[in-house]
Amino acid sequence: MAIQVSVCGPRDCTDEDESNAREVGRLLAERGAVVICGGYAGVMAAVAAGARSAGGTVVGVLSRPDREQANPDLSVVIPTGVGEARNGIIANSGDAVIVIGGSWGTLSELALAMRHGRVPVVQLGGWRILDHEGRPVPGVRHVSSPEEALEATGLWA
Amino acid sequence: MAIQVSVCGPRDCTDEDESNAREVGRLLAERGAVVICGGYAGVMAAVAAGARSAGGTVVGVLSRPDREQANPDLSVVIPTGVGEARNGIIANSGDAVIVIGGSWGTLSELALAMRHGRVPVVQLGGWRILDHEGRPVPGVRHVSSPEEALEATGLWA
Amino acid sequence: MAIQVSVCGPRDCTDEDESNAREVGRLLAERGAVVICGGYAGVMAAVAAGARSAGGTVVGVLSRPDREQANPDLSVVIPTGVGEARNGIIANSGDAVIVIGGSWGTLSELALAMRHGRVPVVQLGGWRILDHEGRPVPGVRHVSSPEEALEATGLWA
Amino acid sequence: MAIQVSVCGPRDCTDEDESNAREVGRLLAERGAVVICGGYAGVMAAVAAGARSAGGTVVGVLSRPDREQANPDLSVVIPTGVGEARNGIIANSGDAVIVIGGSWGTLSELALAMRHGRVPVVQLGGWRILDHEGRPVPGVRHVSSPEEALEATGLWA
Repeated sequence: MAIQVSVCGPRDCTDEDESNAREVGRLLAERGAVVICGGYAGVMAAVAAGARSAGGTVVGVLSRPDREQANPDLSVVIPTGVGEARNGIIANSGDAVIVIGGSWGTLSELALAMRHGRVPVVQLGGWRILDHEGRPVPGVRHVSSPEEALEATGLWA
Repeated sequence: MAIQVSVCGPRDCTDEDESNAREVGRLLAERGAVVICGGYAGVMAAVAAGARSAGGTVVGVLSRPDREQANPDLSVVIPTGVGEARNGIIANSGDAVIVIGGSWGTLSELALAMRHGRVPVVQLGGWRILDHEGRPVPGVRHVSSPEEALEATGLWA
Repeated sequence: MAIQVSVCGPRDCTDEDESNAREVGRLLAERGAVVICGGYAGVMAAVAAGARSAGGTVVGVLSRPDREQANPDLSVVIPTGVGEARNGIIANSGDAVIVIGGSWGTLSELALAMRHGRVPVVQLGGWRILDHEGRPVPGVRHVSSPEEALEATGLWA
Repeated sequence: MAIQVSVCGPRDCTDEDESNAREVGRLLAERGAVVICGGYAGVMAAVAAGARSAGGTVVGVLSRPDREQANPDLSVVIPTGVGEARNGIIANSGDAVIVIGGSWGTLSELALAMRHGRVPVVQLGGWRILDHEGRPVPGVRHVSSPEEALEATGLWA
């Protein structure tokens, strides 16, 4: 079975997030990884487009029970019908989780991935989390480029 | 995007179910369809093995949050962590649903596929459902061979 | 903690189902049991109305993420937002499961309750399930009145 | 139907979190609100104990499909069996959400409540979220005592 990497990010993202997502998708596909994403617009569409441009496989794990609003670059679509509970499914499905950009939905995916604690979680841009004393909560690997994001997963070390 | 067909069936299945599942998997892969299944043993393992033998893509939508007990022939694995709620996800994910053999879990998948009513549901062997007057509840397409199962989906008409 | 009984049944039900559901709700409340139901119309509304008429507690486990279409007799509402996956939650939540009437959604609840196999499942009216040789699949306790339904749960033996 | 308030917080919490949770539970019960919580130890157990001490109703929405590890102060138990997907169900079930203390699971509940955006979200202690420019992400109402937490919900204004 191929390596799987979940890529999370907001529907409404910045241009930089979108560009980063496209490049992360392309790099993952070049290394033969299957990309798991939320299947809609924004970061989800960009990572799918990037992976597809390199001939990769992209799975869209949708919140809706049907294919409405799914982006056009998915190889496989899983219309879960479980709403935002699909965020945890995405968090569970990667050998690593890469988070690009920030939103409440994206934060829930990051938190659920850290909660299960089974795989590396890498963050490129987006929000920061501080504990009650104002210190960064440890665990997430912060990077500043798509190349570093892949490296930080440790999957190709 | 490729056609997707969900194939459901019990972990503890008969030899005939297993043989049917393997052949359904093989035929689906030959026609280029992605197979969606529950990812564990029995009918799930047989349809995966059949599809893989013909070079097909098989997605295992697991109840567990990890890959334990997943069968070895999956191309993509989605460890949902939502328990039996994953049965509805499988029912939602096909352009058609093929049910092979009978068990309570399998019946829940058949019922959920009929409940959403969006795609053809085909049954090969397994249980029968009668209404309160003893008449077969209409809707499910009953067939008696793997070839008929694919034909009854109407996807290649 | 009080005894909890899940009562399942279709939105579009017969007059007899509705009358049975109302009486089951009333009897459960009289015995101090909390009623768990799907929270919408038909059997779900009737069992809630019956329980409330006797001062009982009724929990509606909704498929939607909000309270739209919830019936007016719920004491507590759980808007799961997980769609039909809520059927399994209802099946999990009772010390017994009583099924009244038949529909595909209802059948999925019955099947999921039998699948987990932890509690008695009682059926009043509705559909019948036969195995591949045409024999009734064992396990469900069939009854013909609301009083018998409560008795068959074994919870007040 | 009574007002419902979801209270989220970690299993492994500080003494202060536990004391706050107990007091929040007591105050909610005194005002007649139903408390929705995750049903296990730590903040979840403390809020349940507090509410029960004042005669309140407490619903435990469990990740497991059974009642193992549930705390002893629940009035109603919903063993969802959907794992961490139950976090979103808790976030959906309150007319307000009060978050006490910090953990990754707790953060996912806060994020999912902010994601759906339907009700006030109040935070007492715990983690802070900054955007990519280091500014607090707006929306969560931060308070410093149980009394202020109830006031900040706006439900009794």
